[in-house]
Amino acid sequence: MKIDQLGEFGLIERIRQALPQGPVADVMMGIGDDVAVLRSGGERVWLVTCDVQVEGVHFLRDAITPQDLGRKALAINLSDIASSGGRPRFALISLGLPKDLEVEFVDGLYQGLRAEAEPFGVSIVGGNISSSRLGIFIDITLLGDAPPKNILLRAGAQVGDQILVTGSLGDAAAGVALLLDPGLTTSAEYGAFARLRRDTPTPRVREGELIGAAHSANAMIDISDGLAGDLGHICESSSVGVRLFAQSLPVSKANRALSQAVYDGDEWHFALHGGENYELLFTVPAAQAEALAEQVTSATGTPVTIIGEIVPLAQGQRLALENGSSIPIQPRGWDHFKENK
Amino acid sequence: MKIDQLGEFGLIERIRQALPQGPVADVMMGIGDDVAVLRSGGERVWLVTCDVQVEGVHFLRDAITPQDLGRKALAINLSDIASSGGRPRFALISLGLPKDLEVEFVDGLYQGLRAEAEPFGVSIVGGNISSSRLGIFIDITLLGDAPPKNILLRAGAQVGDQILVTGSLGDAAAGVALLLDPGLTTSAEYGAFARLRRDTPTPRVREGELIGAAHSANAMIDISDGLAGDLGHICESSSVGVRLFAQSLPVSKANRALSQAVYDGDEWHFALHGGENYELLFTVPAAQAEALAEQVTSATGTPVTIIGEIVPLAQGQRLALENGSSIPIQPRGWDHFKENK
Repeated sequence: MKIDQLGEFGLIERIRQALPQGPVADVMMGIGDDVAVLRSGGERVWLVTCDVQVEGVHFLRDAITPQDLGRKALAINLSDIASSGGRPRFALISLGLPKDLEVEFVDGLYQGLRAEAEPFGVSIVGGNISSSRLGIFIDITLLGDAPPKNILLRAGAQVGDQILVTGSLGDAAAGVALLLDPGLTTSAEYGAFARLRRDTPTPRVREGELIGAAHSANAMIDISDGLAGDLGHICESSSVGVRLFAQSLPVSKANRALSQAVYDGDEWHFALHGGENYELLFTVPAAQAEALAEQVTSATGTPVTIIGEIVPLAQGQRLALENGSSIPIQPRGWDHFKENK
Repeated sequence: MKIDQLGEFGLIERIRQALPQGPVADVMMGIGDDVAVLRSGGERVWLVTCDVQVEGVHFLRDAITPQDLGRKALAINLSDIASSGGRPRFALISLGLPKDLEVEFVDGLYQGLRAEAEPFGVSIVGGNISSSRLGIFIDITLLGDAPPKNILLRAGAQVGDQILVTGSLGDAAAGVALLLDPGLTTSAEYGAFARLRRDTPTPRVREGELIGAAHSANAMIDISDGLAGDLGHICESSSVGVRLFAQSLPVSKANRALSQAVYDGDEWHFALHGGENYELLFTVPAAQAEALAEQVTSATGTPVTIIGEIVPLAQGQRLALENGSSIPIQPRGWDHFKENK
């Protein structure tokens, strides 16, 4: 069997099952979340994550500046640490580079890495450089830390929790669509915004650390695979269902219009299934949800929206529409090895 | 300028200089050694390293089994933790895989990873899978820990120290030469040994931890770039010179004969410049060198040989030959971006 028949998540599950099961000394969370959580012997625990940008898969060399590529490669890892409620600390940068690449490309890449690292107090402490006949790849391992009680994972969402999301949905996906189909039209203003969200995602680092430190949320994830896909990860890990309210989703009219144009009239497709969104998605008991949303917004300026609620597993995952009906949410997040439609 | 004009070490130095200088909280060692050393708040410190295997650069898919590839990809990282005197603990595996790869390849890769991890108590706690149009790459981040006083780095070698090496030299390089030139001849026995050393290097994990815990060595590195290159790293970081004794080098006759055949009569080329050796190279005050060598050999069975001594910087880096003359050692270790001859 080829791996594209099994798919990314099938392959990860196959790997997970082939590894030793059961608790391991000092491992609070291993494979199965955005971060591994490791006891350090000190008061804080370590969080470790890695993510890669591969030329021809995640980026096209001619469509992104080296600075933006460096920023994005680090941002997606920052987002994973943020989604656990931790504080990012140290990065290792592993580069695969073609021999005939201009040195200035590497300079620009590191300018971008620094520009993304320094506002969050992250230090680049190591890495590796290899030649690559395969084009460019940038694999980053990011270490963070947190007091253990601040850590939020995919598991832990409770029936009755409200579902909250930072920022807006679907804009990076609209930016990708505008890149792939030059015939698509939107306002100059929204086009520029969507491209910005595509090329320089904003990891919600301060927001994530605040949410962890508030000790009221029950589960958190960042939206890298699309809202439906990542909400599906929370549902699966927490054994719960979900009811989203379409009219509450923070999606612009411009985004919905582009989604309709690309997906045969489906105005929610970018919002539900667009990848690389890098907003934080978290669940909070209803009594505390509004207070936490206001606390995060007042401290960071980032909007936080209540978009739905956690329901019993048997009720499945559904999107309630304005007309009173509801439709099932099918996770169709990005899969590296399948056709993504 | 293209990066192959600057070379791997020039590029690393350029990156290092572009990063913020000066001490960083909790970073005991950043870029510039085999591992980063990070304070954890606990009694032990963390060691972090990453290294990658790229198809077409480090391996040919048809010339190595997936099991051996998995073992090797982890072994080279284990060797880096070992070279700092630490204990390897946790691995993150980042894979780039072509969509049409057989699932069984990934199964085999993980069998190899487990086979290498488990004897050393290493747990695979996370990772990442990406599709790659670029062929296969396997980037591993390995975390280890150690009591701070056990840690050995490239800096610290003292004039008068003896230079010790585990195992034997040049055999992996001979294995590569046998792969690249089927016309080369050697005994069946040595050929099999050299291929084994090429495909399944033995990281000196227990040896490294013992050397760190003995508190007599002053500096340590693993031989990944070749003896001359890695000894050069110690000399540069420690501001010292070195005198090696050719007749003391642990190099087999069969290896020297192959080296002569490939390198126009230079019997020491594989031993001095062969990469992927993954032995530990360390320096110890003369009064304690023999005792440490015996301690490591009696505990692990691994031979340890005294091959030279640290001399003042002004005396340079030289190889003393049996006839009483000496020749300069030119670091010619592997450079990813230059022609390697």
